Amino acid sequence: MTDILKGIYPPLTTPFVDDEVATDQLIKNVLRYETKILSGYVLFGSNGESAFLTKEEKLKIIRTTREQTNRTIIAGTGLDSIKETISLTNEAAEFGANYALIISPSFFKSEMKHRTFLNYYLKVAESVMIPVIIYNVPKFTNVNIETETIIELASHPNIVALKDSTENPSRISEIAANVHTGFKLIIGTASVLYSALSGGAVAGILALANIAPDQCVQIYNFFREQNFGKALELQNRMIPVNKAVTSKFGVAGLKAAMDMLGYFGGPPRLPLEPLNESQLIELKMILKKAQLIE
Amino acid sequence: MTDILKGIYPPLTTPFVDDEVATDQLIKNVLRYETKILSGYVLFGSNGESAFLTKEEKLKIIRTTREQTNRTIIAGTGLDSIKETISLTNEAAEFGANYALIISPSFFKSEMKHRTFLNYYLKVAESVMIPVIIYNVPKFTNVNIETETIIELASHPNIVALKDSTENPSRISEIAANVHTGFKLIIGTASVLYSALSGGAVAGILALANIAPDQCVQIYNFFREQNFGKALELQNRMIPVNKAVTSKFGVAGLKAAMDMLGYFGGPPRLPLEPLNESQLIELKMILKKAQLIE
Amino acid sequence: MTDILKGIYPPLTTPFVDDEVATDQLIKNVLRYETKILSGYVLFGSNGESAFLTKEEKLKIIRTTREQTNRTIIAGTGLDSIKETISLTNEAAEFGANYALIISPSFFKSEMKHRTFLNYYLKVAESVMIPVIIYNVPKFTNVNIETETIIELASHPNIVALKDSTENPSRISEIAANVHTGFKLIIGTASVLYSALSGGAVAGILALANIAPDQCVQIYNFFREQNFGKALELQNRMIPVNKAVTSKFGVAGLKAAMDMLGYFGGPPRLPLEPLNESQLIELKMILKKAQLIE
Amino acid sequence: MTDILKGIYPPLTTPFVDDEVATDQLIKNVLRYETKILSGYVLFGSNGESAFLTKEEKLKIIRTTREQTNRTIIAGTGLDSIKETISLTNEAAEFGANYALIISPSFFKSEMKHRTFLNYYLKVAESVMIPVIIYNVPKFTNVNIETETIIELASHPNIVALKDSTENPSRISEIAANVHTGFKLIIGTASVLYSALSGGAVAGILALANIAPDQCVQIYNFFREQNFGKALELQNRMIPVNKAVTSKFGVAGLKAAMDMLGYFGGPPRLPLEPLNESQLIELKMILKKAQLIE
Repeated sequence: MTDILKGIYPPLTTPFVDDEVATDQLIKNVLRYETKILSGYVLFGSNGESAFLTKEEKLKIIRTTREQTNRTIIAGTGLDSIKETISLTNEAAEFGANYALIISPSFFKSEMKHRTFLNYYLKVAESVMIPVIIYNVPKFTNVNIETETIIELASHPNIVALKDSTENPSRISEIAANVHTGFKLIIGTASVLYSALSGGAVAGILALANIAPDQCVQIYNFFREQNFGKALELQNRMIPVNKAVTSKFGVAGLKAAMDMLGYFGGPPRLPLEPLNESQLIELKMILKKAQLIE
Repeated sequence: MTDILKGIYPPLTTPFVDDEVATDQLIKNVLRYETKILSGYVLFGSNGESAFLTKEEKLKIIRTTREQTNRTIIAGTGLDSIKETISLTNEAAEFGANYALIISPSFFKSEMKHRTFLNYYLKVAESVMIPVIIYNVPKFTNVNIETETIIELASHPNIVALKDSTENPSRISEIAANVHTGFKLIIGTASVLYSALSGGAVAGILALANIAPDQCVQIYNFFREQNFGKALELQNRMIPVNKAVTSKFGVAGLKAAMDMLGYFGGPPRLPLEPLNESQLIELKMILKKAQLIE
Repeated sequence: MTDILKGIYPPLTTPFVDDEVATDQLIKNVLRYETKILSGYVLFGSNGESAFLTKEEKLKIIRTTREQTNRTIIAGTGLDSIKETISLTNEAAEFGANYALIISPSFFKSEMKHRTFLNYYLKVAESVMIPVIIYNVPKFTNVNIETETIIELASHPNIVALKDSTENPSRISEIAANVHTGFKLIIGTASVLYSALSGGAVAGILALANIAPDQCVQIYNFFREQNFGKALELQNRMIPVNKAVTSKFGVAGLKAAMDMLGYFGGPPRLPLEPLNESQLIELKMILKKAQLIE
Repeated sequence: MTDILKGIYPPLTTPFVDDEVATDQLIKNVLRYETKILSGYVLFGSNGESAFLTKEEKLKIIRTTREQTNRTIIAGTGLDSIKETISLTNEAAEFGANYALIISPSFFKSEMKHRTFLNYYLKVAESVMIPVIIYNVPKFTNVNIETETIIELASHPNIVALKDSTENPSRISEIAANVHTGFKLIIGTASVLYSALSGGAVAGILALANIAPDQCVQIYNFFREQNFGKALELQNRMIPVNKAVTSKFGVAGLKAAMDMLGYFGGPPRLPLEPLNESQLIELKMILKKAQLIE
């Protein structure tokens, strides 16, 4: 493993051929990412279409990836059910995952508050064999874990990090100022990578890193070297691309961009649909303008 | 089976003792419901805490219930993953479920639109052994299936009904006017039962029916007998109770009310928490005022 | 005045020519509405584009309308500022308004709760010369006045009615069961007119009544005559039209439909824009299907 | 005037005594702020309770402030009505305002899109005598002006700046990279001041500057001097205070904090209410912890 929970981690997309997981394409992608200065991989996070995968598929994805890499593997094993989360996490650990990325429970939205989140994460953390990374992503869950709750959870020995996918870096600053230094803050979107690093984040799990791993690592390194101007300049060049492969076109857009860049993207799984022609043209222009393709 | 998809169906809560499914308490509840004029049962719907159950627990709940009743069993087998939905639905059918209640997929909220819903429901419907009931419940999913989409899906032979849990009965009217008469409309909340029946609904899947099955059936029958004034009067008496066991206190409130009425409610599963003392007192007063307890 | 706060009231649109209020067109519209069995008019409600009018324009609209009719005039005089609301309401009264329709304050959304609404409405009610109608319209304000708050406000002698523009008729039922009979419940959307009347509403302020006043009155009368089937049938025929002139195409759609039906609709005021060609064609088809035009 | 639209501007609260504007207290506050290194003042912005003021009160506040200062005055003159906005802005200019802060129109939320915002801002900009600052504040308006729209508006000669009150600094970066350098970016919340400055903002309109003007200026200056560590450290110390006087306790909290710090805060205007005892104690502890009071 490389330096633990620092640096850039792409949340790998899941390749589908004929709507089935294509491990051969996954292997090709991973082997290419192995040539980049990445710290590891997130498997079946949001952009890995975790919501559409069976348990068997998830475990197969871990095993396949583990066979190709010695880097850190973070598996997206959080589910609303505590029992299911614990059992999936422990199986993922056996298959080679180093960390569990646990998305907040969200079904009973109006009940998801400080106490409920404590109940959930403490129970999970004390029952799983690998360290837990809290995952806050309101755009998918429609619930938000308040900073106070994160700060309280950070004192548990098996809760080691937060992935925050809001675009509000004051959350990172506020938490950083109130937790022990071993608790790692990971930003979940490239659009505020620089700001998050300024505020105390030490890693990024970035959809953008699937298509622009070098650029993501460069922003990270520029920042570490206090080359702030260059970090910001490169980030600003990437913002329109990041927007295109997240809020604008979603996972279908991310996969289409991968195809344009020589990775295997392929279609998203049903019920999602691939981009149409006019969207593909718009996406290509965005990639060109950012100098990712010619 | 009683008259198909007509009448009142309680979405049964799942009894937990020491945070584990207590089938003995489930049996006791079902046996008491068997003495009521109910048309059947919904198992692990939203209020059955489906989100917190494992697959094995879900199947055990079906088997247990099926052993106690000849009535219609509707199982809440919808998940974001089409594959998982199909396999759970078909297993549920083997264990005795008659219908599958399929909640809308919702993880990628901004992508959940007409086309995506068609992709999802058509694929599921053609792959499962029992008829599909579409389940629209924006308060939990944060997505809404438009009436146009329902109307288009209603023409599939294996999509036989809609459970709509919005409180907007104009949706029921609009759909009723545009689908074949075999497609059944089921209202998902007691607060607008009367209005929904007026607009063309023929059944109710009502959390309230867990604690006031007789009253729910009475409202239904008053309406059928064109005794509209009595139907409305009784419904209005039940509205505060319904609010208490749904939006106000959630599933913890519903279970507490069951305890007060001689059913086994028990605590909700973690991470949810039971009501506190002051909430219990408020709930008791609401039940008293509605003449459900003395 | 006709029977007070019963029956159907169109919330009149405001005619603009060259982006200025065109009182001559307003007069023509009013004179035609005078031939219909309407109970009165709402001036500069939401659909009257109140948000875009100056105080002088509002008062001119009242005076112009009052000169053409002896019917009840309800003026939309609510603003966030209590002082402005009181002064506008009292001037409106002097110009001939009989009731003030007071939209809930909403700027500081997170502060708009039970206590704040009480503060606001009680202060306004005790300071104005005409009776107050509370106006709850979350789709425009993003705040909701809870039923408990309405019930408490209903005991004030100068707060005489609620216009509720949610599509949830259980709110009407619940309030009706808990207020004195003099407090009038008015439904704010034609899509649930029948349900609201069932639940205790006695009037409708309906955008649809601008273009289909006869049909709205018929639904109302069918219901009063206990001709429930006919009421529902006609309402269901109108639902797609109502949707087109509210949520689908907004006030621009309502005005375009008025033009198609021989009223003066005209364009909405800037910054809004009129419908484009393809929207006009779609709207025309909807009106045809509902047999409002040939 | 000091350096134009650079530096820190407090959005002054409006003092009320017996629910009326107290200009004597406003003067005392302004005179004290004059001793701080502030670039000017925003009058009746959101925190100035603009929503609760009459036109006459707004103009009186400008005149009173102008008599005490030669600094830049920015007046919050935006309303949904274009006509009202133009006339209020021009009167504000005559009374001494240098810039108009124009909040986005928001009443017809679903219509507030690219085209509508262009219509609104272009019409206002070409009709007013002072330069326009676009004001985007979704937490109050529930609408968001997309970055593409801002970029297009920035080319108008009389639209000179954006105040962005989201906490997402990637908006600032993205806009900065796409507008001419004369277009100023102003961050509207202290919680992301550092990040916004990094991304290209040159000023802050910060509620926090009402109670901690020195600290806000220090963060700004530390950043300008490339003393990034100190800038972040001080900002992080201020984040809990900023949260207390904005999202947590709102304008009532901001005013209570002013009272604790020797300014005149006083109560908010009706219908808002002052903090209760327990909230005051919590607020005092937060100010103490941040070393703003002893």
